[in-house]
Amino acid sequence: MEYYNLKICGLKRQLPIVPLGPKLKIASFNLLGDGELVEKVADDLVKKLKEIDFDYLVGPEVKVVPLIQVLAKKLNKPRYVILRKNIMGYMTKPVSNKSKPTLVLNGPDAEILKEKKVVIVDDVVSTGRTIRVVQEMMKIVGAEVVGAVAVFKQGEKEEEIEVPFFFLGVLPLFKS
Amino acid sequence: MEYYNLKICGLKRQLPIVPLGPKLKIASFNLLGDGELVEKVADDLVKKLKEIDFDYLVGPEVKVVPLIQVLAKKLNKPRYVILRKNIMGYMTKPVSNKSKPTLVLNGPDAEILKEKKVVIVDDVVSTGRTIRVVQEMMKIVGAEVVGAVAVFKQGEKEEEIEVPFFFLGVLPLFKS
Repeated sequence: MEYYNLKICGLKRQLPIVPLGPKLKIASFNLLGDGELVEKVADDLVKKLKEIDFDYLVGPEVKVVPLIQVLAKKLNKPRYVILRKNIMGYMTKPVSNKSKPTLVLNGPDAEILKEKKVVIVDDVVSTGRTIRVVQEMMKIVGAEVVGAVAVFKQGEKEEEIEVPFFFLGVLPLFKS
Repeated sequence: MEYYNLKICGLKRQLPIVPLGPKLKIASFNLLGDGELVEKVADDLVKKLKEIDFDYLVGPEVKVVPLIQVLAKKLNKPRYVILRKNIMGYMTKPVSNKSKPTLVLNGPDAEILKEKKVVIVDDVVSTGRTIRVVQEMMKIVGAEVVGAVAVFKQGEKEEEIEVPFFFLGVLPLFKS
């Protein structure tokens, strides 16, 4: 196993380099379970988020969920909204999009976002597809996306994101 | 829509009552997105967890993830372990169980749990099946389960859990 030595927010992590296709490898970054890193990353993202006027943080399940919980607390926001990948048993009047990947909002979550300003949070943004699908969902429920933040951008390619986008660092792509 | 009026940790929430089968309804409790409630619940669970000598908190994705992040921080544990439902692209040498529901551990997570003491965290425990499957996974990776905590037990039936089990409250079942 090859590793990429990451330095971020004063911490060091060894990221496994994993194949993403026949000619592409990525340094695989995972916040889930790394509570110490979540806290440090949140401290840095909060500085940027305090500059934005918004109502709710929103993001896709699962890996970015701990970060959004911690960001919400540090920003004194009692509620945030997680977009699920499937309709779940606990949901009432779920709302979904038509394009892929499918995302689902619980009905009451869709309701509280109506006419509200939201910031999208993700862990790693590469093609920007997840951000665009979350944007599509926000349009469906009538929320205004005023910004997007991520821990990392993956690769140097300019992402196609239509809202102000902020990230802490860049993860390399390895092409062969 | 009928609701159940919940009081917990000084907060009030209206839980939708949803069908779980032809003759059973439950009050549906969801921590995901309710950052304020996660913090309050964590404060109460931390008091109990401080009495237990353990190394890692472990739990299944997704709804309990924010709670485990906050508990780990309050208990000064830099790492915790989330069991996924599927093998994910970021994983190296994933470890899985044979019974249902399937749970998956990333190889490095399985490695750090070896010969360690763990406490299982869940949001709502009804039949205790999830706890038992997590216990099975801990046996596979060589970890010792020294306890289990949940926010709620659902129903009055005695759960079949072989380790010390602590919960904050009981959620009702509605039979017709």
